[in-house]
Amino acid sequence: MSGLPPIVVSMGDPAGIGLEIAAKTVAARDPSLPRFVLIADADALARAAARCGASVAPHAIETLAQAQFGEALDVLHQPLARAENPGAPDTINAPAIIAAIETGVRLTLSGAARALVTLPIAKAPLMAAGFGFPGHTEFLAELCKDTPIVGARGPVMMLAAPGLRVALATIHAPLRSVTERLSVSAIADVGRVVAHALRRDFAIARPRIALVGLNPHAGEGGAIGREEIEIINPAAALLRAEGFDVGDAQPADTLFHAEARARYDAVIAMYHDQGLIPIKTLDFWGAVNVTLGLPIVRTSPDHGTGFDIAGRGLARTDSFCAALRHADAMAAARAHA
Amino acid sequence: MSGLPPIVVSMGDPAGIGLEIAAKTVAARDPSLPRFVLIADADALARAAARCGASVAPHAIETLAQAQFGEALDVLHQPLARAENPGAPDTINAPAIIAAIETGVRLTLSGAARALVTLPIAKAPLMAAGFGFPGHTEFLAELCKDTPIVGARGPVMMLAAPGLRVALATIHAPLRSVTERLSVSAIADVGRVVAHALRRDFAIARPRIALVGLNPHAGEGGAIGREEIEIINPAAALLRAEGFDVGDAQPADTLFHAEARARYDAVIAMYHDQGLIPIKTLDFWGAVNVTLGLPIVRTSPDHGTGFDIAGRGLARTDSFCAALRHADAMAAARAHA
Repeated sequence: MSGLPPIVVSMGDPAGIGLEIAAKTVAARDPSLPRFVLIADADALARAAARCGASVAPHAIETLAQAQFGEALDVLHQPLARAENPGAPDTINAPAIIAAIETGVRLTLSGAARALVTLPIAKAPLMAAGFGFPGHTEFLAELCKDTPIVGARGPVMMLAAPGLRVALATIHAPLRSVTERLSVSAIADVGRVVAHALRRDFAIARPRIALVGLNPHAGEGGAIGREEIEIINPAAALLRAEGFDVGDAQPADTLFHAEARARYDAVIAMYHDQGLIPIKTLDFWGAVNVTLGLPIVRTSPDHGTGFDIAGRGLARTDSFCAALRHADAMAAARAHA
Repeated sequence: MSGLPPIVVSMGDPAGIGLEIAAKTVAARDPSLPRFVLIADADALARAAARCGASVAPHAIETLAQAQFGEALDVLHQPLARAENPGAPDTINAPAIIAAIETGVRLTLSGAARALVTLPIAKAPLMAAGFGFPGHTEFLAELCKDTPIVGARGPVMMLAAPGLRVALATIHAPLRSVTERLSVSAIADVGRVVAHALRRDFAIARPRIALVGLNPHAGEGGAIGREEIEIINPAAALLRAEGFDVGDAQPADTLFHAEARARYDAVIAMYHDQGLIPIKTLDFWGAVNVTLGLPIVRTSPDHGTGFDIAGRGLARTDSFCAALRHADAMAAARAHA
């Protein structure tokens, strides 16, 4: 291995598909894939590998310095309170799940790791244990909030696939509340984070950013809604005045075919499905979730815990592998920025 | 030609790309394409053909019986008040534009034509002349309202492309008003129209219909919005009780990749962009607009008047050709239903 610090991967919910994805990925021994250290219960990893027939054993380590990156999977041991039951999340393991994320953030913030990839968590069992965040993104922002950052601070959620990067102005908001959550300043904040991140983490010197209209036909000059005129276009003008390459709101339905995608480096969608429909239509298995505007590089597979298929060896590793590659490329870009 | 009545095509706005699309389509002489009669100003068609270098001449006719389907394009003459100026719509021609649509509907209702394909109109110049409809769909419904129909009456707007059919529960509504426009009965009405149309016009004996959730993750059990629980799923249950194959609301972002699309014959989106984003991402040039629940078969290309490129020969004919093929197939299915 090179002297670069490793990527660390937090286990996510051990009752989900995360551990088997990690095991299958290492067992596939793709030499082009960046190696990583898993933060997990080493025994749980061994059980997950056995369940899905992945020929990989855990190599329990106490510190990253002990990682060997050999045939075994280096596991920074984070013991579970109770052995996992695939498909049945257990609140008693919530502290271990959370601790794995905290360890990953700490190691990445310190520079001992070069990026963090998180495996999926489920909200319900964590919330039952008192976890007060809607998801990884907000929790990571909290853990990183006292660390200085170069450029605008997020978090901003981006989905990335080959040929399309979509950032979200609102995330898990009911559709009826999307409009009231949009403001000139909120969209401009997202625009700055996206622009800075494209420069620093994606090595795009002068990123071109497209804003998606909220209404059909981007409001058709005010005939079908006025948020483009009153909120989105003023945010675009503000960002342009700050020197960013950002266009006015464009109709959502004409912004995602190949010719349109070639005209921007990232698009900012106004709400969850507006951004996730096109990227998951184009690349359902390979899209990656990236958190922009953090002092650390963080990516994750763009899928959930998969409790319904956990333990059966059915889970696909595409998105996790893409998350590893994205984290690797972003860390390299950031190191050279 | 067979003894089947022809497809008729209304000219749309002569200042737009419609006439040149018709001219280029005929000039390409694709023998697999259904022949049609254009309802337009024959001189305007000749000018449009000349402008884009399409080697096709108009053959002016007074009745459909005079159509020859030869090298020339049969044109049922509908004179303009003033010669068109490409890119500059002229309100003085609004009556001719509207009359072409009315003629097309009349001929199709009477059985003299087997289907109507409409070329694009622009709302502003028609409305300035007193046209009181938001678009073709509503105008056609008005023209057909006194004619009996087999099955549930629409209009319902559907976009169709190879591998995906999307019907819309709301169309040109500002996003902030979508929620208030949804109701159990409105969605059930759309579902019935779609189900009947798939049987009659698409020859699908037992159509499978998917409903798209309104909120991220289809509301996640009520955590991110309750419209799935209170409106969409009850509509699905109502439709199932009537014998239709309709599932509960599904997350929008996991419904449009190839594997998901294989599980339904049509999807009902709750709002414009939710349906148009995936179909135009998958097939930007070839999607077709279909009006369901009318006593006539009507399709149109899924694009606008293209005033910005009109008269320059740049317009693509893909969607118009697809609209002709869809109209032909639907008329055939309906004839055998």
